[in-house]
Amino acid sequence: MALHFTSEQRLDDGVLERAFTLGGIPGILWTPASAPAPMPLILLGNTPLGLDKMYPRLAARARQAAADGFAAATIELPGSGKRPRWAAAEQARADLRRTLEAGEPVSDEIIDALTIPLVDAAVPEWQSTLDALLSLPEIGGPVGYSGGVISIGVRLAAVEPRIVAAAFFAGSFVPRATFEEARGITIPLHVLLQWDDESNDRRAALDLFDAFGSKEKSLHANMGGHTGVPQSAGDAVAQFFTRHLK
Amino acid sequence: MALHFTSEQRLDDGVLERAFTLGGIPGILWTPASAPAPMPLILLGNTPLGLDKMYPRLAARARQAAADGFAAATIELPGSGKRPRWAAAEQARADLRRTLEAGEPVSDEIIDALTIPLVDAAVPEWQSTLDALLSLPEIGGPVGYSGGVISIGVRLAAVEPRIVAAAFFAGSFVPRATFEEARGITIPLHVLLQWDDESNDRRAALDLFDAFGSKEKSLHANMGGHTGVPQSAGDAVAQFFTRHLK
Repeated sequence: MALHFTSEQRLDDGVLERAFTLGGIPGILWTPASAPAPMPLILLGNTPLGLDKMYPRLAARARQAAADGFAAATIELPGSGKRPRWAAAEQARADLRRTLEAGEPVSDEIIDALTIPLVDAAVPEWQSTLDALLSLPEIGGPVGYSGGVISIGVRLAAVEPRIVAAAFFAGSFVPRATFEEARGITIPLHVLLQWDDESNDRRAALDLFDAFGSKEKSLHANMGGHTGVPQSAGDAVAQFFTRHLK
Repeated sequence: MALHFTSEQRLDDGVLERAFTLGGIPGILWTPASAPAPMPLILLGNTPLGLDKMYPRLAARARQAAADGFAAATIELPGSGKRPRWAAAEQARADLRRTLEAGEPVSDEIIDALTIPLVDAAVPEWQSTLDALLSLPEIGGPVGYSGGVISIGVRLAAVEPRIVAAAFFAGSFVPRATFEEARGITIPLHVLLQWDDESNDRRAALDLFDAFGSKEKSLHANMGGHTGVPQSAGDAVAQFFTRHLK
C-alpha cells in the first residue's frame, strides 16, 4: 500500500509537513529542510485524543527530530479523530468514567478492555505505515519510536525488528500483558515519568521500567504534573535518539 | 582561615589542579585554563574511600566542570586518607562488616552510627572550605554540590544557603534523619540512581527522591551496576549545572 499525500506546508524553520492517508488511516510526515537522504525516522506515538488535539505536541517533537536530521511521522489511532467510531472502545471508556466517578478502583478487566483491543488494532497499522514510509526515497532508517500510548509502543518495540530504539512516556492503566511483552524487549530504551502526575500509576511505571529486558535503559523522572515536562527532559530524549539513530 | 596551596600541576586540557590544606584538611581545587573570573564553583563530594582512590572519578568530574567554565573542589573526609584515624567510624564499619558477613539485616542503629557522626563532622568542614574558596579572587559563585556521601550532601544542601543546586548519587544506608532533612531542601536537585547496583537500596533511594521538598527535581536511573554510570548520565549532570550555575 502506498502513501497518498493530501496536503503540504513548509513550516517557518524549513521543515516540510505533509498530511497523508494510508488505506484510510490519516497521518502526518515531517521532513527536515535539508538532511542527507535517506534519513533516519522517528515514529511519534499518538493518543486517543486524536491528531487535532495532539498536533501541537507532535509537531514540537517532529521539529526537534528534524533539527537533529530525522524524519518524523504519526498516524491517527483506530476510533480517534475523523476515523470511524469504535463501539467497543467507547464502551470501555464509559465504563472507566463510571468507575472513576464512583471512586472505585479500576479493575484489570476495565484496563484490559480499554487497552488490548486498541493495541491489537494499532500495532499492525503502525507496521504497515512503516513499510510505506521506508519505501520513500528520502527515508532509509534507522527507525525509532517515541511516546503515545505506552502499551502500543511496548508491543511495537517487541515485535517490529526495524525499531532499534524507543522512548516511552509512563502513563496510567498498564495491562498485565504489557508487563509480559516488556520482558521481551532488548533494544535501548528511554522512559519519561512525571513524578507528580496524578493520572500516573507511579508504582506501575517503576515496575514496568524494571520489567524491560533491555540491558541499556534509562528512566528520567521529573516534576511538573501531566503536561509540564521540562525542556531538559525533551532534550534528553533528543540526545537519546541522536545516540542510537545516527 | 585561609587555604594553603601545597602543590600544583597543569593538566593536559589546560586545567590547573592545585592541592591545598585548610587547617589540616587536605583538598584539591581545579580551575579552567581560561574562564571569566570570578567563576562559579562546584563542590565535589568525596567518600570514605579517600582522595587517592577517588582521584580518577573526582578529576574526571572536575575536568567536565572546567570544560563548562566552573571551578571544582573537594576535601578529604574526617577519618579518611591521611587524616587521623577515627575510632568511632572504624568501629561502625567493623559492625557493618560483621552484620553483612553474618547475612543479617543492617539495623537502623548501625546505619546511624556509620553516617550521622560523619555528617556532623564533615558538613561544617565543607562550609569552612566554601568560605575559604569564595575568598579567592577567581571564584565568585554561584555554588553547586555534586556527589559523595548522600547524607553529607543532603544536610549541606539543607543548611548552606550559598549552595543553589545539588546533584546526588543514590547510595546505600540512608538514616531516617536524612529523610527528614531532605524534606527541608527546596533548591533544584538532580539524583542519579544505578538501577541494577546491588549495593543500593533502590526502594530507599526512590523514597528519598520523593521526600525532597524541591519543586524542581529530577531522577535519572540507568543500568550498569555500581561503577558503570553511562556517559550520557554524566552529561545530564553537567547540563543540570550549566542550567543552574550560569
